[in-house]
Amino acid sequence: MNTVGHLINGQHRPDATRTQDIYNPATGKVSKQVALASKETVEEAITAAQAAYPAWRNTPVGKRAAVMFRFKALLEQNADKICQMIGEEHGKISHDAAGELQRGIENVEYACGIAELLKGEHSKNVGPNIDSWSEFQPLGVVAGITPFNFPAMVPLWMYPMAIACGNTFILKPSERDPSSTLYIAELLQEAGLPDGVMNVVNGDKEAVDVLLTDKRIQAVSFVGSTAIAEYIYETANKNGKRCQALGGAKNHAIVMPDADMDNAVNQLLGAAFGSSGERCMALSVAVAVGDTAADALVSKMTVAMQSLNVGAATDSNNDFGPVITRQHQLKVNGYIDSAEKDGARIVVDGRNPQIAGFEEGFFVGATLIDAVTPEMVSYKEEIFGPVLQVVRVNTMDEAMQLINDHEYGNGTCIFTRDGEAARYFADNILVGMVGINVPLPVPVSYHSFGGWKRSLFGDLHAYGPDAVRFYTKRKTITQRWPSSGVREGVSFAFPS
Amino acid sequence: MNTVGHLINGQHRPDATRTQDIYNPATGKVSKQVALASKETVEEAITAAQAAYPAWRNTPVGKRAAVMFRFKALLEQNADKICQMIGEEHGKISHDAAGELQRGIENVEYACGIAELLKGEHSKNVGPNIDSWSEFQPLGVVAGITPFNFPAMVPLWMYPMAIACGNTFILKPSERDPSSTLYIAELLQEAGLPDGVMNVVNGDKEAVDVLLTDKRIQAVSFVGSTAIAEYIYETANKNGKRCQALGGAKNHAIVMPDADMDNAVNQLLGAAFGSSGERCMALSVAVAVGDTAADALVSKMTVAMQSLNVGAATDSNNDFGPVITRQHQLKVNGYIDSAEKDGARIVVDGRNPQIAGFEEGFFVGATLIDAVTPEMVSYKEEIFGPVLQVVRVNTMDEAMQLINDHEYGNGTCIFTRDGEAARYFADNILVGMVGINVPLPVPVSYHSFGGWKRSLFGDLHAYGPDAVRFYTKRKTITQRWPSSGVREGVSFAFPS
Amino acid sequence: MNTVGHLINGQHRPDATRTQDIYNPATGKVSKQVALASKETVEEAITAAQAAYPAWRNTPVGKRAAVMFRFKALLEQNADKICQMIGEEHGKISHDAAGELQRGIENVEYACGIAELLKGEHSKNVGPNIDSWSEFQPLGVVAGITPFNFPAMVPLWMYPMAIACGNTFILKPSERDPSSTLYIAELLQEAGLPDGVMNVVNGDKEAVDVLLTDKRIQAVSFVGSTAIAEYIYETANKNGKRCQALGGAKNHAIVMPDADMDNAVNQLLGAAFGSSGERCMALSVAVAVGDTAADALVSKMTVAMQSLNVGAATDSNNDFGPVITRQHQLKVNGYIDSAEKDGARIVVDGRNPQIAGFEEGFFVGATLIDAVTPEMVSYKEEIFGPVLQVVRVNTMDEAMQLINDHEYGNGTCIFTRDGEAARYFADNILVGMVGINVPLPVPVSYHSFGGWKRSLFGDLHAYGPDAVRFYTKRKTITQRWPSSGVREGVSFAFPS
Amino acid sequence: MNTVGHLINGQHRPDATRTQDIYNPATGKVSKQVALASKETVEEAITAAQAAYPAWRNTPVGKRAAVMFRFKALLEQNADKICQMIGEEHGKISHDAAGELQRGIENVEYACGIAELLKGEHSKNVGPNIDSWSEFQPLGVVAGITPFNFPAMVPLWMYPMAIACGNTFILKPSERDPSSTLYIAELLQEAGLPDGVMNVVNGDKEAVDVLLTDKRIQAVSFVGSTAIAEYIYETANKNGKRCQALGGAKNHAIVMPDADMDNAVNQLLGAAFGSSGERCMALSVAVAVGDTAADALVSKMTVAMQSLNVGAATDSNNDFGPVITRQHQLKVNGYIDSAEKDGARIVVDGRNPQIAGFEEGFFVGATLIDAVTPEMVSYKEEIFGPVLQVVRVNTMDEAMQLINDHEYGNGTCIFTRDGEAARYFADNILVGMVGINVPLPVPVSYHSFGGWKRSLFGDLHAYGPDAVRFYTKRKTITQRWPSSGVREGVSFAFPS
Repeated sequence: MNTVGHLINGQHRPDATRTQDIYNPATGKVSKQVALASKETVEEAITAAQAAYPAWRNTPVGKRAAVMFRFKALLEQNADKICQMIGEEHGKISHDAAGELQRGIENVEYACGIAELLKGEHSKNVGPNIDSWSEFQPLGVVAGITPFNFPAMVPLWMYPMAIACGNTFILKPSERDPSSTLYIAELLQEAGLPDGVMNVVNGDKEAVDVLLTDKRIQAVSFVGSTAIAEYIYETANKNGKRCQALGGAKNHAIVMPDADMDNAVNQLLGAAFGSSGERCMALSVAVAVGDTAADALVSKMTVAMQSLNVGAATDSNNDFGPVITRQHQLKVNGYIDSAEKDGARIVVDGRNPQIAGFEEGFFVGATLIDAVTPEMVSYKEEIFGPVLQVVRVNTMDEAMQLINDHEYGNGTCIFTRDGEAARYFADNILVGMVGINVPLPVPVSYHSFGGWKRSLFGDLHAYGPDAVRFYTKRKTITQRWPSSGVREGVSFAFPS
Repeated sequence: MNTVGHLINGQHRPDATRTQDIYNPATGKVSKQVALASKETVEEAITAAQAAYPAWRNTPVGKRAAVMFRFKALLEQNADKICQMIGEEHGKISHDAAGELQRGIENVEYACGIAELLKGEHSKNVGPNIDSWSEFQPLGVVAGITPFNFPAMVPLWMYPMAIACGNTFILKPSERDPSSTLYIAELLQEAGLPDGVMNVVNGDKEAVDVLLTDKRIQAVSFVGSTAIAEYIYETANKNGKRCQALGGAKNHAIVMPDADMDNAVNQLLGAAFGSSGERCMALSVAVAVGDTAADALVSKMTVAMQSLNVGAATDSNNDFGPVITRQHQLKVNGYIDSAEKDGARIVVDGRNPQIAGFEEGFFVGATLIDAVTPEMVSYKEEIFGPVLQVVRVNTMDEAMQLINDHEYGNGTCIFTRDGEAARYFADNILVGMVGINVPLPVPVSYHSFGGWKRSLFGDLHAYGPDAVRFYTKRKTITQRWPSSGVREGVSFAFPS
Repeated sequence: MNTVGHLINGQHRPDATRTQDIYNPATGKVSKQVALASKETVEEAITAAQAAYPAWRNTPVGKRAAVMFRFKALLEQNADKICQMIGEEHGKISHDAAGELQRGIENVEYACGIAELLKGEHSKNVGPNIDSWSEFQPLGVVAGITPFNFPAMVPLWMYPMAIACGNTFILKPSERDPSSTLYIAELLQEAGLPDGVMNVVNGDKEAVDVLLTDKRIQAVSFVGSTAIAEYIYETANKNGKRCQALGGAKNHAIVMPDADMDNAVNQLLGAAFGSSGERCMALSVAVAVGDTAADALVSKMTVAMQSLNVGAATDSNNDFGPVITRQHQLKVNGYIDSAEKDGARIVVDGRNPQIAGFEEGFFVGATLIDAVTPEMVSYKEEIFGPVLQVVRVNTMDEAMQLINDHEYGNGTCIFTRDGEAARYFADNILVGMVGINVPLPVPVSYHSFGGWKRSLFGDLHAYGPDAVRFYTKRKTITQRWPSSGVREGVSFAFPS
Repeated sequence: MNTVGHLINGQHRPDATRTQDIYNPATGKVSKQVALASKETVEEAITAAQAAYPAWRNTPVGKRAAVMFRFKALLEQNADKICQMIGEEHGKISHDAAGELQRGIENVEYACGIAELLKGEHSKNVGPNIDSWSEFQPLGVVAGITPFNFPAMVPLWMYPMAIACGNTFILKPSERDPSSTLYIAELLQEAGLPDGVMNVVNGDKEAVDVLLTDKRIQAVSFVGSTAIAEYIYETANKNGKRCQALGGAKNHAIVMPDADMDNAVNQLLGAAFGSSGERCMALSVAVAVGDTAADALVSKMTVAMQSLNVGAATDSNNDFGPVITRQHQLKVNGYIDSAEKDGARIVVDGRNPQIAGFEEGFFVGATLIDAVTPEMVSYKEEIFGPVLQVVRVNTMDEAMQLINDHEYGNGTCIFTRDGEAARYFADNILVGMVGINVPLPVPVSYHSFGGWKRSLFGDLHAYGPDAVRFYTKRKTITQRWPSSGVREGVSFAFPS
């Protein structure tokens, strides 16, 4: 059986003294092993990254961008292979994997424009013959720790921009589905990146703790659950590192009485159940304003859900695949059970679907739950499964209050035709990413991704313009050239 | 005797159940008391700020700027009074206080341009008929905690921009010299700011800890010593707040053999001894490259220092005044003692100067120490007194290594005529603010202030463009308007 | 009788060998004379501006901004006097003059932020150890030629930014109402501007032609009618000058069936008749979509117009005043006559109103004309009077086609609640300034003002960010410092 | 014999009723014909571009960028073929053609980042619940007219950015060497550009005049000689088109006494003689400060020039090739003759070199002329050949005065080690592109290219950030949504 190892200083490195099983979630069978890096292996990666830093930092910005242009081309040429790798370990259907990869490639494209993005601010004559300007200099060795649900895209949020800015990188991918992540890093190497600039270490908490404590690591980017994000953020900060840590979500869509209901249902179908709901931007709560809207939403959604196919990634006609593990399958089912027990109405029940030929797979079918209320556990917590819950309210303000009171503030959406309703919503909702008739308002690669409240720890958002600020430090230079003939007088006052 | 109280919700508030002495450092006498706010008083200020927030946030940006324009005018009209207040409690001479105030006013001027600075990024057609844009929204109630050495300027680094961005503010000034700080806040109130938008609480750790833990505070800005900065940063972060905490410094100037030596000496005189060296940007170490440069520097500096006058703020002919407290006077003297004991050469000795009529004042005279080496305690730690130490090295690289190895990375400077030396220095030195023949490279108000290494905790620098990012959160909106005739098809793939 | 002279090199200058009458348009009487500058006088102003240029250009940007801060304060302190001057010569009512002045002051405020706005772009390591940056350097002596309808505001669109950028300026105001313009320039002088930086020459075509041909003038900004704008633009260009020339307008509002009709009527009332319609952003055509909307609009507007008061500026209860001259009064009446003759319906007839005590004033009352069609002269040409014409169409596309086919493209507006209609309109209309439920979409001072088609000649818009680009030239510097030890090899290839 | 035709609406179009000879300048023989488009053919291209515009304008910006990414890849894959085409018709050596192409590709790379570059400015709450933002919308059909000396690069300065901004394009290449230009346009078509978005018409004044007068053309970019540039600029403006027209140059390098002379000589060798001096950025005048520097420069340059090889493009060991035509060869020789006659000293004489096997080629050898003075015709005019002239002056100010007095202001350079000299030069020289020890200061693709004085007609520079502004119009939208419950009151005052 294959073991997925590490990429250190441009070389494959096994270090498989400890390993962990990788499953095919559609069959429920172990398909590979992943090596779990020891402290020494992680330190070796850091040493390589540290050694590669000075030369990479001084490489002209256009030459750093050139690597990104080649990387983009290689990602496109190898897209099918990458999507297949994702399907085998994560379980998502090929059209969905292709969408993920495309979004990731767009982050590489943004990094291709690094020369424009790194421009500093130059001021002439801030004083008599004194000029001043800022430079955004790289940090040094930085690290990323990424989740299972987007093995291609989320790492690509991080290292293309970090590396284009002049840093060197250590990536610790998810141990559930590391193969596509490692392969993509190899393509970056193939694109002409010098050895040691990009390194991948697979592993578990042992590896993570080295990244969080080693003094040579200057910054850590993390995406995962809120509990871990908070731990990562505190630990990294305590160890003198810059950190951005993205956590959980509970994304609500408000359905207004004037919404185009057929369109809303179509949009919600993909946003709630796509990728089995294992997306931090999944739309998991629909808040219907008024019973008329709610009844229409539930009845149309019920019909629409009949056409959904759940199954293995090997059949691209499927709409979505299994969840990632047996434990997660049980956890999702448990949330549906608890909603039922708490008095909600299970309109469409996706528990224990029978998928012919994949009886041992970790499947959960699309589930619709009506009459959910804010006290229910299934409302409060992130389910991360193909479950859409409907909450009924009487007014738009009531709907917004629900969202603003929730612990998370990642994404949200409103369905309406009314300009004023949309503007009021976008202005006052305490959520970082807002959609107007757009149910998955993931910002495009030239904007930045980030939630509010307990969905993100840190000052700066992921990718886009904020990534430049996260992966660089501001340096401000003030310059005056001495005129040999003129001597300045002594000044004790603070210069004004 | 007068007691300096608080400004809460537009009203003077005493709460003087606990107080602390304020000294006139030139006479060594207690001149006033400062009230130390209880937990309840701080919470009352937070409540006021929270109540004022929604209306202030929704005030059009031009009207927020209008308050800043009036504030600037009031600061200029009352400059003499402010400088006198600073002189009485801090001890700095009027020309120096005026310089500090002018720098602070420039931060208000920058806040006058908030409409330009708050512009978000708008993208048309990110997808078919889909637009996306970012807004930089205020955080809510934010706090500032400021040091004794710039009672006017450092608070003005913080709240003008915070308030212009739409936040409401709680300021906790230094308890050593709070009068000018409080008076300036009253001028802002007079400028037309609604009650509760700006609040001042005087106090000690009890007040600080409320600001660090109360859930309603969204962000904390701090300037002070590194040990406290680190505590503030960790505690604020642990309590879910955004934080930037600026700490100590040890600013080196490299004096190259080709430097214009008379100019360098004149510049260093002000940069080392101005404001008694109680500046986080004070130039406290001169690194001379080669003995020829070192000898010239020491001999010319010795001569130049003879013309320096130390004395009370009441005489504007003085160059600098006392240090802030008796304890600090003893601490500075102790550093000079230790340097002497460690084998350095005390070229000009400022210990125990006799100032006629001010025999009890906390004075330290200008001190020059040659042959200092990196192992000495006086080199490693921040003295924060009128002491310039000279380190001799053989090469520019050796000089830069010293700076890069030091714990702090606030400011630094090189004296040279050579374009290549200057560029190499600015590029490779691990310090946030760099001067080329500029010994106090404090960025102008339209750039940002921030050190590297243990001189600043946080991602974003103080004032200038970074202040906009620190005092706002990014929100990204993606918008599509439904065309009633066209229904979108179901899509399960991640949108690309 | 008073004669309004010139301001040259900081001095009042009469040169009144030729003069022209200034009228009080409410009484129809001559009230003053304005001097018409000779070629020599204009050249003297240019010489002064040229002499003042080098020192002003090298004045640190913060000191240039300081003059603008003082200028703003003086404008506010003297606002009543300025508004009275405007009322006497232009005829507009004090609340309207105050609005104009406030808009002008906002342009001064924007110029206060010049340090931020002038920042160039700095790129590190564009090649090995090669840096490159851009500077936006001033042009030299630049000129402005301004119209009668905003004697305070339009000049303030131009010279505050031009001067803040480091240029020196010659202004040629309208000869109809030059007093407030001259007085405002004197306030700028009083604010501390060095002599010769700002100069005012009153005059006619003789003065204009010097400004358009003298080689020392680097750029010309103009606002006026399209015919003159085109002449100015061609002549200035032919003489090697940069030019932006703003001309006429015919601003349409589309009134959709879903519009909030009472609001639309209230908005249109001010936008059509305010300042007697003598605004290049006046809303002079309402395009009603569907007869139901049209009938409601006309009937409600007819009622609303009954409350309008036309009269002299001396009574602030009046809504609007006279037009500027007897000839213009006759011209406006002539357009109403022609519409009537062409078959349109004069719903409210403002011809020949009787204003007690002001029988000789140049008054035209508010006029509403229905059933206007695109072939009518009154539709094709700019009336510049208090006349609102209604065109009836069947669809929104038809309404947009009308606007896109018109010669002018200054401003436009749509009244609707529908997000999609608003977005489609804003996207596809060939007009530079677009309002959604905002009938006078004059951009705020931190955006830029400019029409499309024959409403503006030139690449860059007026005031706001574009003004920085118009009043500066880009200079790009590429810098490499020689390393004495390393010699570069000969390279004949174009560097890559 | 082959005839080079047109590319219209995605199709090859001959229209060879009129043709002109294309020469191989190394052999002096006619090698091909180029078709000269009739008025009708140009109008057909405009019609195609007009038809393609609406769909292309509405294509999401990311999809427009995708074409540019593919175009870049195709250019790299076909680089050798392109360089060979350039060599055959222009005569430049392959390493030089490769440099030109690489520079052109970098402009395509910049266009890949169009999504970032097109971002507008969004302002929230410019008034109560009023938002305002700017969009940079494409112009429509735009045209480019390009010179013979960079058949690949100069067209790539224009249309990638124009097209990425959403415009459609008509290119009129030089009739001397059109093959590579046409082939590159075909590669863009192959990259997936829709038919009609990019069109090429070969031709002469007949074609140009259609582009300058047809109402459907919105803008014209031109690069060529100053006389033609001025004609193009005036004619385009008169016909209501936006225009930028880049003309001639006379680029001076100041050689200071402290310059690293060997380095300066090496740099000048390439900058003066590379591409036979047929570059608008060629360094054609060296201004030596002091006779010591002048003597060293001339003697070292004389030695260095001995190693230069002039010859055909077929041998890549050659340093540079022939000039473009027989007439141009005679013209260059004529300038050398005139300098000699005017009293200058011909140090190295390149007239009539004998190139074995290419006796009929249009060759001029590298020529060095000392003791040139400003009155000489060879100093005043642009030679555009491999001729370096040395002017001797006594001071740096004298050197700068020479440059500032010259008609042209394209590029310039200083050789020095001194920070102050460099800063003073860059600040005060009236030239648009400035090098510090960089003899060909062509801005990188993410800055903009443009000279001052009579080297550029227009407000905006070529490529880089300015290209976005040149190829788009600003539209400013102000939006308020009606709140149905609240009616706004009538306002006649100008809104403030």
